[in-house]
Amino acid sequence: MKKLSTEIIYIAQQAKKASEGLANLPTEVKNKALLAMAKAIRERKEDIIQANKQDLELSKGESSAFIQRMVLDEQGVLKIAEHIEQVSKLDDPVGKVIKEWKAAQGLHIKKLRVPIGVIAVIYESRPDVTSDCSALCLKSGNAVILKGGKEALNSNKAIAHILTEAAAAYLPQGAISLIPFREREAVDILLGLNDYIDLVIPRGGESLIRKVVEKSRIPVIKHYKGICHIYVDEDADLDMAQEICYNAKVQKAATCNAVETLLVHQDKVVPFLPLMLKKFQKAGVEVRGCEQTQKVVNSISNLKIKAAEEKDWQTEYLDLIISVKIVQDLGEAIEHINKYGTKHSDAIITDSKSKAEEFLQRIDSACVYWNASTRFTDGYQFGMGAEMGISTDKIHCRGPMALEELTSYKYLIYGKGQTRK
Amino acid sequence: MKKLSTEIIYIAQQAKKASEGLANLPTEVKNKALLAMAKAIRERKEDIIQANKQDLELSKGESSAFIQRMVLDEQGVLKIAEHIEQVSKLDDPVGKVIKEWKAAQGLHIKKLRVPIGVIAVIYESRPDVTSDCSALCLKSGNAVILKGGKEALNSNKAIAHILTEAAAAYLPQGAISLIPFREREAVDILLGLNDYIDLVIPRGGESLIRKVVEKSRIPVIKHYKGICHIYVDEDADLDMAQEICYNAKVQKAATCNAVETLLVHQDKVVPFLPLMLKKFQKAGVEVRGCEQTQKVVNSISNLKIKAAEEKDWQTEYLDLIISVKIVQDLGEAIEHINKYGTKHSDAIITDSKSKAEEFLQRIDSACVYWNASTRFTDGYQFGMGAEMGISTDKIHCRGPMALEELTSYKYLIYGKGQTRK
Repeated sequence: MKKLSTEIIYIAQQAKKASEGLANLPTEVKNKALLAMAKAIRERKEDIIQANKQDLELSKGESSAFIQRMVLDEQGVLKIAEHIEQVSKLDDPVGKVIKEWKAAQGLHIKKLRVPIGVIAVIYESRPDVTSDCSALCLKSGNAVILKGGKEALNSNKAIAHILTEAAAAYLPQGAISLIPFREREAVDILLGLNDYIDLVIPRGGESLIRKVVEKSRIPVIKHYKGICHIYVDEDADLDMAQEICYNAKVQKAATCNAVETLLVHQDKVVPFLPLMLKKFQKAGVEVRGCEQTQKVVNSISNLKIKAAEEKDWQTEYLDLIISVKIVQDLGEAIEHINKYGTKHSDAIITDSKSKAEEFLQRIDSACVYWNASTRFTDGYQFGMGAEMGISTDKIHCRGPMALEELTSYKYLIYGKGQTRK
Repeated sequence: MKKLSTEIIYIAQQAKKASEGLANLPTEVKNKALLAMAKAIRERKEDIIQANKQDLELSKGESSAFIQRMVLDEQGVLKIAEHIEQVSKLDDPVGKVIKEWKAAQGLHIKKLRVPIGVIAVIYESRPDVTSDCSALCLKSGNAVILKGGKEALNSNKAIAHILTEAAAAYLPQGAISLIPFREREAVDILLGLNDYIDLVIPRGGESLIRKVVEKSRIPVIKHYKGICHIYVDEDADLDMAQEICYNAKVQKAATCNAVETLLVHQDKVVPFLPLMLKKFQKAGVEVRGCEQTQKVVNSISNLKIKAAEEKDWQTEYLDLIISVKIVQDLGEAIEHINKYGTKHSDAIITDSKSKAEEFLQRIDSACVYWNASTRFTDGYQFGMGAEMGISTDKIHCRGPMALEELTSYKYLIYGKGQTRK
């Protein structure tokens, strides 16, 4: 434990030192480092695939979903290189003037975008997080400390080793580092190092995030679960409602921006639900309905649906399951969403501008949609060119997090000898 | 403990409920509430003064600095009312469109400023924090939970009671609440309520802030100590340097933006230091110098100065004391500041544009000055019209924190039936 602690503190100190140099690195140098990193990943793809095979060997017996997240074949490795190249093409947010004005006694103030400093990313079994986060942190001028899941340690080590070696000529030492330990305590030690680390970003399931929030003395930006809702209003265009609901559930059910609960206005139940549910059934979606939904659906069609329990409204299925609730009006829909939602993404389908505006204003979520699929909550879809995750916090940044969200700012104040009166 | 916990949770739940209504309250209504609050404070000033007398009675024997922070005379109470009126005149940040663009498939995205939600303010003995924070949180659409020092509980209760009563006609119940308990555990309980509270702002000394950071599961914005530096460069205008250094130390020594350490380029020691130190001596400032400072000053003048120890570089004196260090060059000055500074405010005095630019770029502090006093780090001086504190964090906001810094944002996405491909 003592040795572990000493080594992790050393890594954090090196990162802190590196962050000073990184903050002032010209964009061209950062881009050269990124391109060298991508090239090295392509050239040494076999090393990564071999390391990944070791991890897969050690994970025999795990669920297929678990294995699927971990596996890196040739295509997967080439995607890693492509992502790094994409980041090199993005605008550098560092050094941009956010605002500029004259203040007291003619002082000239510039609010300037700067890197945050040292960012620790704590994640689970996906090894491509290692390279994605390294590239985004580097481009935004931050040093990064990576702590991935122990199951993928060989893959992560191989990727981090290739990246740091390739970038060594351009970056200060310690700019990218990986915590190379399997021990659980490594995370606890890291979360106490608020003298060296400025921000922690956990990426993974609910229990990982809860643990990080509980232990961390460093600010955390949470990328928490997405219990997303679609409300089909009495003034909804029903064809549009069907297409959007189908897309938001079926197109990629395992993502945090997929819909989990469908709320339907009581006057739209008969024309809307039976058709919608048949479509879901065809796609293999399991439907769990509130009492009224069950009653109505069972009485007018030959569909049998399961009962939704209280805990269904609180569940992010991440799977082909959807819960359905009939509501009296817009107000009840809004209340349900603000109670059970996770401040992620929610949508209303309606032709009524006034109802849409009320929904947009009152729903307290990062992304609130009018007549579009919740699946658009994504850094790339939003035009940010990248994505570090989706923040469900309201502090620092909210919703899709890309390069700009990985920065802070400082004030430069230009005087001519002014003193305070 | 159980009862305490139940009552505090109830207060937090009420605040959370109130925050939903507050977020959508029109500016006019918030301003009416503020004006009613100010009026009530004026009308019932005697109640506050009486309550304050009770607190002072209970605090007999405390230091005079302690008592001074607590005391509220008629002038103090009228200042409270004035501050609230000032806040009513400020621009409402809520509902402003930060950015607006077309994204994937023609989706129209608006990034809109919204309140954070529920803010807990944990502070020490100054009772005017109760009203200042209530006014700022209300104007920015946030519910506030106030937990002041136990010594000022009667004063805080009186102020909070008058404010909530006066605003009752305009605000949802629970918009402003005070934790009315003396028990230490009250803070710990509050810091665990991350289901209801979105942000904690501690205002007070180092030990309070450390405690809050250690215990909190809620995001914290730290208003930490200010060890501010001024570096007098070899290219400094010495008259300007003298005026700025004098102002930054003497004008109000007990503030976080006062200078604590003076760094002097080795070639400017002889023409600058003896005169500067005499000026300090006249103002009653105690000087603590590095070895070289002592040697030089003792050899060329009849001033005797104390030795500065390692811990002097780490100390926020908040008093008429200054530490002085002679440095070889700009690089050494920058290293010293980034090592010992608290990311608050630091200044360079120089006529050299290139040296100033290097200083501005490399110093990692919220406010970096060229040829001006560090004392300008202040919400009012910056033209923000208010101040909740000075953030020394790099997450969410940095430097002076006013209304805009008390907000978050959300994305409104306007579609025409778009689904993700």
